[in-house]
This record gives sequence, structure tokens and C-alpha cells, in this order.
Amino acid sequence: MQKQSDTAIARPLLAPKSVAIVGASDDPTKTTARPQQFLAQAGYEGQAYFVNPRRETVQGVKAWPSLSSLPEVPEHVYIMTGAEAAIEAVRECARLGVAVATVLSSGFAEEGSEGQEREDRLRAAAAEGIVRVVGPSSLGVVNPRNGVMLTGNAAFGEPDIPQGGIFVASQSGSVIGSLVSRARGRGIGFAGLVSTGGEADLSLGSICEATLDDPGVTSYALFLESLRHSEDLASFAHAAQKAGKPVAVYKLGRSEEAAALSVSHTGALAGEDSESEAFFRACGFARVNNFESLVEAPALLKRVGTADQPRTPRIGVVTTTGGGAAIMVDQLAIRGMTIAGPSEQLVADMNAAGAPIPHSLIADLGLAGARHDVVTTALRLLQDSGEFDLIVFVIGSSARLNPELAVQAISESGGHEVPVVAFALPEAPEAAELLNRSGVPAFRTPESCADVVAAAFTRVSATIGEGARFAVDAAANTEVLDEKVSADLLTRQGVAFAPSVAVSVDELDCDLGLPFAYPVVVKVLSDKVPHKSDAGGVVLGVTDDEGVRRAAREIVANVAGYDPGVVVDRVLVQKMAPKGLADALVGYRVSPDVGPMVVLSTGGVLAEIFADSAVRLAPVDAATAREMIDEVKGLSVVTGYRGLPEGDVAALTETIVGLSRLAIDDPDVLEAEVNPLSIGAAGTGVVALDALVRRIPVAAGASAATESVAVPARS
Amino acid sequence: MQKQSDTAIARPLLAPKSVAIVGASDDPTKTTARPQQFLAQAGYEGQAYFVNPRRETVQGVKAWPSLSSLPEVPEHVYIMTGAEAAIEAVRECARLGVAVATVLSSGFAEEGSEGQEREDRLRAAAAEGIVRVVGPSSLGVVNPRNGVMLTGNAAFGEPDIPQGGIFVASQSGSVIGSLVSRARGRGIGFAGLVSTGGEADLSLGSICEATLDDPGVTSYALFLESLRHSEDLASFAHAAQKAGKPVAVYKLGRSEEAAALSVSHTGALAGEDSESEAFFRACGFARVNNFESLVEAPALLKRVGTADQPRTPRIGVVTTTGGGAAIMVDQLAIRGMTIAGPSEQLVADMNAAGAPIPHSLIADLGLAGARHDVVTTALRLLQDSGEFDLIVFVIGSSARLNPELAVQAISESGGHEVPVVAFALPEAPEAAELLNRSGVPAFRTPESCADVVAAAFTRVSATIGEGARFAVDAAANTEVLDEKVSADLLTRQGVAFAPSVAVSVDELDCDLGLPFAYPVVVKVLSDKVPHKSDAGGVVLGVTDDEGVRRAAREIVANVAGYDPGVVVDRVLVQKMAPKGLADALVGYRVSPDVGPMVVLSTGGVLAEIFADSAVRLAPVDAATAREMIDEVKGLSVVTGYRGLPEGDVAALTETIVGLSRLAIDDPDVLEAEVNPLSIGAAGTGVVALDALVRRIPVAAGASAATESVAVPARS
Repeated sequence: MQKQSDTAIARPLLAPKSVAIVGASDDPTKTTARPQQFLAQAGYEGQAYFVNPRRETVQGVKAWPSLSSLPEVPEHVYIMTGAEAAIEAVRECARLGVAVATVLSSGFAEEGSEGQEREDRLRAAAAEGIVRVVGPSSLGVVNPRNGVMLTGNAAFGEPDIPQGGIFVASQSGSVIGSLVSRARGRGIGFAGLVSTGGEADLSLGSICEATLDDPGVTSYALFLESLRHSEDLASFAHAAQKAGKPVAVYKLGRSEEAAALSVSHTGALAGEDSESEAFFRACGFARVNNFESLVEAPALLKRVGTADQPRTPRIGVVTTTGGGAAIMVDQLAIRGMTIAGPSEQLVADMNAAGAPIPHSLIADLGLAGARHDVVTTALRLLQDSGEFDLIVFVIGSSARLNPELAVQAISESGGHEVPVVAFALPEAPEAAELLNRSGVPAFRTPESCADVVAAAFTRVSATIGEGARFAVDAAANTEVLDEKVSADLLTRQGVAFAPSVAVSVDELDCDLGLPFAYPVVVKVLSDKVPHKSDAGGVVLGVTDDEGVRRAAREIVANVAGYDPGVVVDRVLVQKMAPKGLADALVGYRVSPDVGPMVVLSTGGVLAEIFADSAVRLAPVDAATAREMIDEVKGLSVVTGYRGLPEGDVAALTETIVGLSRLAIDDPDVLEAEVNPLSIGAAGTGVVALDALVRRIPVAAGASAATESVAVPARS
Repeated sequence: MQKQSDTAIARPLLAPKSVAIVGASDDPTKTTARPQQFLAQAGYEGQAYFVNPRRETVQGVKAWPSLSSLPEVPEHVYIMTGAEAAIEAVRECARLGVAVATVLSSGFAEEGSEGQEREDRLRAAAAEGIVRVVGPSSLGVVNPRNGVMLTGNAAFGEPDIPQGGIFVASQSGSVIGSLVSRARGRGIGFAGLVSTGGEADLSLGSICEATLDDPGVTSYALFLESLRHSEDLASFAHAAQKAGKPVAVYKLGRSEEAAALSVSHTGALAGEDSESEAFFRACGFARVNNFESLVEAPALLKRVGTADQPRTPRIGVVTTTGGGAAIMVDQLAIRGMTIAGPSEQLVADMNAAGAPIPHSLIADLGLAGARHDVVTTALRLLQDSGEFDLIVFVIGSSARLNPELAVQAISESGGHEVPVVAFALPEAPEAAELLNRSGVPAFRTPESCADVVAAAFTRVSATIGEGARFAVDAAANTEVLDEKVSADLLTRQGVAFAPSVAVSVDELDCDLGLPFAYPVVVKVLSDKVPHKSDAGGVVLGVTDDEGVRRAAREIVANVAGYDPGVVVDRVLVQKMAPKGLADALVGYRVSPDVGPMVVLSTGGVLAEIFADSAVRLAPVDAATAREMIDEVKGLSVVTGYRGLPEGDVAALTETIVGLSRLAIDDPDVLEAEVNPLSIGAAGTGVVALDALVRRIPVAAGASAATESVAVPARS
């Protein structure tokens, strides 16, 4: 059966002309009675049918015995029955030609192998028609713009769900209602909310992508428990960028505990958080770390583009309450934001114009400045000064008690090309409402404000697409290459290795005739010994031929003692490199969740202890590689920290780029690592001293490649 | 004039029988008209006088020409005039015998040398009587319990300031009103709020200490811009612990930017944040990092003692909303909290008792569990199980819509010895109000909840007192001791040094007769060369007498080239220690802000880059020293990380304790550092390889000691 395209489902999903509730209850206290109540309360103007084979009426309205008994084929069906009945209902949807079925029922993949089998049957039932399925375990679909309330979430029993431009897609059902309650009364509203549930058919990414053409949807807020169906998210990210609709995301799993919980909670495999981070960055999503930031972020994201935005924005802080501004400065600075104080000229201009401020990092208008005229003058001068990329206004008690003063003036500044955001030190929902409605993003806590500002400015343009691959077969047969073969492969990627030769242990007594000078390192050369040092397989500082022979025999003996199953027939003799300024680890791996990634760290146990690494989706360009180097704190010893001699950052950059291009040049490589990479002084290069590659064997490569899903390159 | 003791001012400060407003305005829109309005609205039952020499009446009430014209001496006077008039008013207070004067006027120390001179005159005026001064630049003193509203903060124009047990003291004036607005309607209330202003006379610490006997004050919330008058805070901390009244603190200056801002903003010197952290810990304060946590923390702090509290509390998470609970688990875990899942037995018991939960890290009752009986049963079993030290209940949409269900049941659990805290995923102020009033601390954001839980459980008993000294004269003459003298001094503290001898360069040709074996290190020995390596003053790996002579001559030449003003007459010959497992830096310094401190890090540039150090007030005991070792991430290589060989942690502990006891044993030492301290394998000890001491010269010691302020040892 030819399925509908994702975009074709947008209308039946969010604006169906007719809906049916399967499993509608007559008992008004039941969850299954709620959609009927909510649809009526919200004034849904389409046709609504309620299916309940055991009753004539439900809550006073005619009940239909089945979907097929309805006078028309409903466009969107919400199924609230048990699991087995839900499968049957989906089958009927398929048979009738229903466009979208949303399934509340649980008992599917989250419940082990039996549930998995049920989910397979659910999918098979859907496959019998054009119907696309949201869920199972979906708490529903809501569109506040037209009264579509296909949800069992009690939160939607409140009238007047705030309308606006945010589309919420959440893997957690209860989150959608909670976000509405937290946005309510603050000038933040929604164009739609979907609880994506088990994503058995429609994934969160494809649901979002389906809504991109809806002009009422201007931004996205995603709540993720784990990374699932990354290819759909990547495709959505790509399209969202083209459409100019920003995306904020909150994802669980910052901690290992939550990641583990996510596994048991949703039945999905939680990705490593650093992978997610790299993925979101490549998607151009703004990841926020405060829960409320999810609804507060979109307004600012709409004002701050990704393409032309400065890397280190100049943030001006203006206030009528010095103490509140100091809190904000603190919160911004601990998130790496740079506060720019007004210039002397600007201070003089403001004093002259009747908006006096002292010479300070913050433009403090003082209590007396909480006047409409003073704030208007101040903002005009600050915005026109060219000294700031963003202005944060911290409002004092007037925000709560006299919003007609400072708040009103701030609300009139939203049209300027330099955006203003506002934080009121007191609780001030009315001020927030006025500000948000006027295009001035307003935040309730200083933490959320700083979180969103940082997320907005560290967001970059989506790069996903180029070379993105997913659905790597984790179970594919792979082989580990020995150091020499690994080095040869990575040399083709432009990685510079210390010169080396393989020497057969049978030929040790011949003339060695090394093509480079002593001293050398002698190492076991075998794809069976990945951890060479542990096996006693490395001898350093060998200074002559006889030393090489002695070292090789020692290694043979050591490895035999370490693992009697391994026969060492070759050693690698490698020229010892002069000691560099620092060592790096450059790694590459194809993650089953997010595809090819490149990793940079200093290697060694301290890098691990400090979790000091930078991760990006591969391939990366030189600018991104350079950014990674700046991100690894331990590498600041080669980038000019406190006058230390600088390392060859250019050569390190090239190595990162080269390794990352395995994503394009050699898709069958699943893992590659250069460790250590010795970083010489600027101009003297970098030298790789060891290498490891794991790949799909060359013969098997062709078939595996067909299994990967390509995402179109960015156009 | 004999001043009142700090405790004597508690009543006139917070419960004066009579008050006077100096500078009261007749214009109801003026800040100076507000106290009169607020006092009337709040129903203050004492006698209120309004002083305005230019009018017969102010806002319809008799105006008095001066303080001395009043029919009685008011107990508390609020002065709202300009700076010079304020000094005169304070002088009159002194003359009349007024107990407390709170000064709103600005123009004092925060305004440079002229302001400083004014502040000196203000203090001198106060010194003429018993009067104690709050401010200047104090936005006022408020007691919601009796209508004392001596404040110009517009926020207090709202009626019904919520009453409760929290006493707020804030260096920022606008914060007090904002905290009230954020607590309002959520069951959190105040026993008093004071804007401490410039602390020219009464410091924040002494104001708090004065209120400790007030039975209505049950906890404290402090807002600090910078550490000032630490001795008073220490004294308050000591007394607060005795009184069993917990203290939460929010302090600016987590970032360097805010610290810098704090300087310009308040005219005070901002302390280093790590010093503050060590100080608060020693005070037994709970430092929170979210602004709203300041009012949300006290309720939990009252439930969680410091003495008997476990180091790693077992935190149980129970919920009716899996997604919300997962957010909470994430937030707790990233703050280092350990989530404890229910045991199999407990799961079975709950299933049997009608509160079924799955086997998971969280006790998820599901949507269906949002019933009074289910939640009651669940909490009873969880609290009685003995498996948890704290239970966090994450409530779903019912918290907002049906507080009579889960919320009501949770509110009935507050009396159990295992405390419950609650977080509602939706916005749910009514639930918070019911819960807070019932002794179940309720939080608005998951971030604040996790912040407070972490702060509550990392809080320790106040240790401040023993050996605490402040007010060190930073300008005192000090001398830097050379390595040999430094090592001798620190040897007396139990620090183990590598054996060494001083050799005069004049006697190099004599028989050296070293009392230890080669190899050795030769180092310049001079108090004029603190950075020996930079000056070419260190030669490593010297293997015989002739080598020592050569090295010594080389050093003499190098240092002469480095600094021609220094004549090297001696070198130190030190036995080379075998390479240890890791190096540590153990430091000691007397901070002008918080007194003696001990610091541990791995030394070197990476420790600096990662800000990887542990700081405590000195002296410390072995348990605290051990805790410091665990805190320094880079030292995990010697504490059993991933099976690495363990270092001699016991010897390292002793070294830290020994150095820290300089605070008692040798108060004239202002700075001491052992770096590097080489850590050998367990049982083989640690060896100090270099030392540096800065001290007040022995002759000058006596006078300096008298300048220090001793805080009584904890009784």
C-alpha cells in the first residue's frame, strides 16, 4: 500500500475535518471520556464521532458501534482501547482509508518481547492502508487554534489553551500539559502539541517535519527522553533550517542515571549524552538545560539567526535594579557569555539624554530610572550604539507593580534589529505577558534566561545532511586492523605517522637496514593484540640493531605469556619522535544512533577523569576542527595558555579534518583512533605514534553500504 | 558610650513599640511617602511619628519638626533624607537614646573617598550614643508579623506580606521585595526582611545573630553580593547552629565577571569564590545556586540535620508521571546525588498493598496512582521501608487540577521522620501552598528542587570558631623564607621532606661528604629567588661531587644573568626521590576575608586549567583532609581509579592536616606551600620536594597577633 508522504498528514493530524474517538466512555470521570469533553469545550467545529459498541450514547451524544458504521471516513482517529483492540482499530483505519490514527493504548514495545510482537502486528495492521500512526502510548494530539483536542491529558480540561507559534513534540506525554500550564498567562502560546509515544510508525522527527509548511507553526520545542530515529530528526532539522523555523530541545540523559532510567522508562536505547550534544549541534538545535526554558527559548531563537551570528556575542545588561542585574551577569558569565559594558561615549550620551548610568559593566539606571521616558531613551541609545548583539533588561519591582513604566517602554523596543530580552527580579506574570506578546522574550528565572541566551548564541547552522549515515548494522562482521595497516589507511586521510617498518621475527638475524635513524620503539604487530602495553608488547628507546633483536624476542615472550593463543610473527620498528608539547587523541566512530562522529581529547586517564573531550558529527571542516581544539581544556597548553609555547594547531586541525572525512572516503570504517598524536611546536607538525582501525572487511563492504540511509546534503 | 549588645537590638529592630520616619514626604508618589502608607496598610500597632520640618502634616497626619520634638524617644528611626542630613539625624538618635536607626540615604562608602569620609562621620555620630545603625543604603526593615514596614521598597505596597519563619538578610535591597513576590501564594512566609546596605555599623552577620532568640525566626535566607565582615558571619553561624536554625545562602561571584561587578556595585572587595565556598561550608550554611532556591531551601533544611546526616543520602523518587520523574532524576544525578531504587521486597509489598510500581529506579505509580488512597499507601510503605533518607515526589497534572488527590495525601506525610519533598511538573501554586504549609517542602522547578536537595545533604555541621582568625593586616611587613628554612618550619608541622643540605658556594672545593646517596638535585638557595626554575636555578640528576660543583657554578652564573641584583652564596643539595605515582600541591594561606585556609590540588598547569582544587578553612581534621583528596579529580589516580595502584593517601592526609594546623601552631605564617609533594605507593609515604613560606618576621609577630580577631571555639 502506498503510504502518504509525511507532509500529506499535516492537515489530518492537526486540522482534521472529522475525528473519531474509539473507546469513548460514558463515565465522565474516566480518561477515555475526556476527549469528548475537551472537544466540546474548545469548540471543535469539525465532525466528531464517538465509538463505543456497548452503548447507545456516551455523555449524551450518539455512540457508534464501530468505525465502519460511521456516515463518513474520519480523517483522524484517536484510539483509547486496550492493546489488542487498538491493533484491530488500526486495521479498520487502514481498511477504511483513515489518514491518521493516534493510539493511546499501552502494552507495546515498552513491555518486553510480547509487547514487541504486538507492536509488529500494529505496524503490519497499519501497513494494510494509507493510515499513519502516532503512538502507541501517545497521550494525544492538540491544536489550540481549532479545538482539536485528541488527548486524555487532564491538563487540557482547562479552557483557553494559549495559542501561539510553538509546536511541541514530546516523547513524554505528561510534559505537554505541564508546558501549557507553565506558559499560561505569560504570553507564550502553542500551535500544536503532540505526545509522540512509542514512535512505532511516525517518529517525532517526521511528525515535526510534517508541520513545517503550516504557517501558524513558527518554532519548535522538543522534549526527548532518548535519541530515537535520528535520521528523521536530521531530515527535519535540515528542512526546519530551510524554512527558517528554530528548534529548542530539552533532552534527558545529562546524567548516567537518567540515561539508564530512560532505557527502562521508554524501552529505547539511550544514546551517550555527548553523542546527542554533537547531534543537536549538527542539527542546529538549541539545547536548553532548564525545563521551563523549553517554552521560553523559541521567542529568542526567532530573533537570533544562526548564520550571521557572532561567536562571542556582546551582551549588554541594563537595569533598574543593580542586585538583580548582578545575578544575571553571574548566570550569563558562568555559561561562558561575555558581558560588554557601555563605552565611555555611550555613558556620556546617556547622561546627556536624561538616562544617566554610572561607568560600570552594567547600565544601571537605578530605581529612579523605572520611568517610561527614561527607559525608552536608554534602550534607544543602547540599541543604536552598535556596541551590543543582545541587550538583557533586568527589571525591578516596577515590573510587578507598575508595568506601565519600564515594562511598557521595553515592550516597545522589540522591533529593533538588536533584540532585547527581559528578566524581572520579582514574580511578574503580567509583565511577561505584555513583553512576550510584544516580541520581547521574557524569562521567569535568571537561570532560564541565561540558559536560553547561551543556547541561542552557541547554536550554529545545521550542517547535518552532508555525509550523514544512520542505521549502521551494529551486528555486522568487522575486523580490527593491525597498527601498520591502520596507519597506512589513515595516512591516506592525511594523518602523519612516525616512519616505521614491519620486521618479521624470522628475519631478525638478517641485516635490519632501517630506513631511519635510531632511537626507535619496537612494538608487537598483530591485530590480535589491541592493548600492546598491557601485553608487554612495547619496548621504548632502542638504540641499535642488536637492541631491536633483543626487544623483539622479549616481546614475543611477553605476549606468549600474556595470551598463549597469540603467535607473534612480526614487530613494528618505529622511529622515536622527539617529545612534543602535548599529546592528543583523535578518534572516529560510526555511532548506531547518530552516525559518523569525530572525537578529540588529550588522551590518557586525566582526560577521562575530567571528561575533557570535544565531539562532532563527521565530517568536519577546518573551522569546526579548530573549535574542537579550543573546546578541549587540556589542549589549551598548545593554544597560547599563559604564554606557553604554541603547538602546531594547523597540523592538528588537518589531522582532525582528515580523520573525520572517513565518513565520506571510507564508509566501511566503523572506528579509527590515533593515540597518541604528538603535537610539536608551531610549524613543526604533529606525529601519530599509534593507530587502530576497525572496519567492515573490504569484501563485505558493498552489502553493508546499501543498508545505510543517506540524508540529502544541504542545498 | 557603651553600645547595646547585638541581641539587645533584636526587639527595637523588628518589634519597636514606636518608630519615626525622618524625611517623610507628603507626596504619596514619592519613595519617602511609602513607609507611612505601608505602616497604615499593615496595621502597625505601635506609635508611628513622621518627621518633616517643612510641613504641618504629611499625607494627612501630623508632621513633627524634628526627632527631639517627639513626645517620646522612638525605638527605631528610619532615615530617608540626603546623606548629610542623615548624619545629623543619626547624631540626634545618639543624643536621644534611640536604639536602632536604619538609613536609606546613599552617598557613603560606595562613592569613593568623599563618601568614605561621610561614612566615617556617620559612624562617629552613632558612636555618641547607644544607637546602632542599619545601612546606609538600606532599603529597609520589614516584619510581616507586626506590621513594621520601615522600607521604601515598592514591593511592600502589596497587602498581606506572607508570614512565616524565614528571616531574610540581603546586601541587595531590591532582592527582599522580589523574594516576597516569589514566595507569595506558595505557603512560604517571612519572620523578617532586612536590607543590610553598606553595613557601616551593624553587619549582616550581626543583624542575623541579633534575631536568633526570636522564636518566630526559624531559619535564615541570606543574599550576599560579597563576603564582608566574615567574623560576624562566623559568629552568627556558630550561634545559629547552637540554636538549631538552618541558614541558606545565595552569593554572587560564581563567575569572575560578577565578582568584578560586585566591587563596583557595592564598594566592597569581592572574595574569591572558592574562599567563599570553603567559608560557607565551615559555617554550616547551605549554598544554593538558583535564585528561587533561597526561599524554597529553608523548609527542607529544617528537616535535614547536619550532624547525623549521611554523606551519600539514599534518595527515593516516587511519581505519578514517569517523564517528570526522569527530569528530576537527571537534575539530582548531575548534582552528584544518588538515586536509590526500591528493593524487590518493597516493590512486592507495594504491589500487594494496592500501590503497584514496576521494578525500576523510580517508584512510578502511573497516572492511575494519582489517588489519595494509593499515594497514602505508597508513601507509608516507602517512608517505613528504611530504604531512603529522603523521598522526592514528582506530581503530574493532578497537582494543578485535583490537589485533593495526590497532593492532599502527600501533605499528610510531612510528619514522618523520613522527609518528603515535592515537585509538580505543571505550574501548581495551590499545591505548593498546601504542601509547604503541611511541612512538605515544595519546589517550582526541577532545577531548584535538585539544587536544594544537593545543598541540604552536602551541608555539614559548622566547624567555624576553632582557630578562626580574621582581619589580618594585609599591609603587614612579611618575609619570604628560603627553601631550607621553609622546609625546616614545615617539617615541624609533620611534612616529610627529601633529605637535603645547604652548601656554601665558597666551600664547594672542600669535601662535600653528603649524608645521603646520589643522585641529587642542586638548587639555588635564596629567599630572593622564589621562582628557581625560571632563573636557571635548578639542576636535576647530579650523580657525583664534581657534578654538584659544576651545577652550583652554573646556577650562580644563571641567576646572576637572570637578576644581577641577587648574589647567590648557597645552594641546596637534595636527594632525588624515586618517581611517585602523582604529585600534589598542598598550600596554606591566611585570607584577609575568611582567615586561614588550606588548599589541595595536583599542581601544574592542568590543575589550573581545570580549576581542580579543594579548599577548606584551616585547620582541618583527617576526615576533612580525606574529603579534600576525594574532591580533587586529578588525584583520583591515587585513590583507586580504574584499578590504578593506590597512593599513600594516609600520608597525604597527614600532610594536609599538618600544614593546616599552622593556623594554630604558627599564626604568623601567612602563606606556605609544598609543591610538588610526590605521592608514593600506599605504605611508602609522601615526599615534599620544595617549600615556600611567607610570614610576619618573628620579631614583629607579637604586635600583629593582637590585631587578629579570635572567634570562640565551638562549645
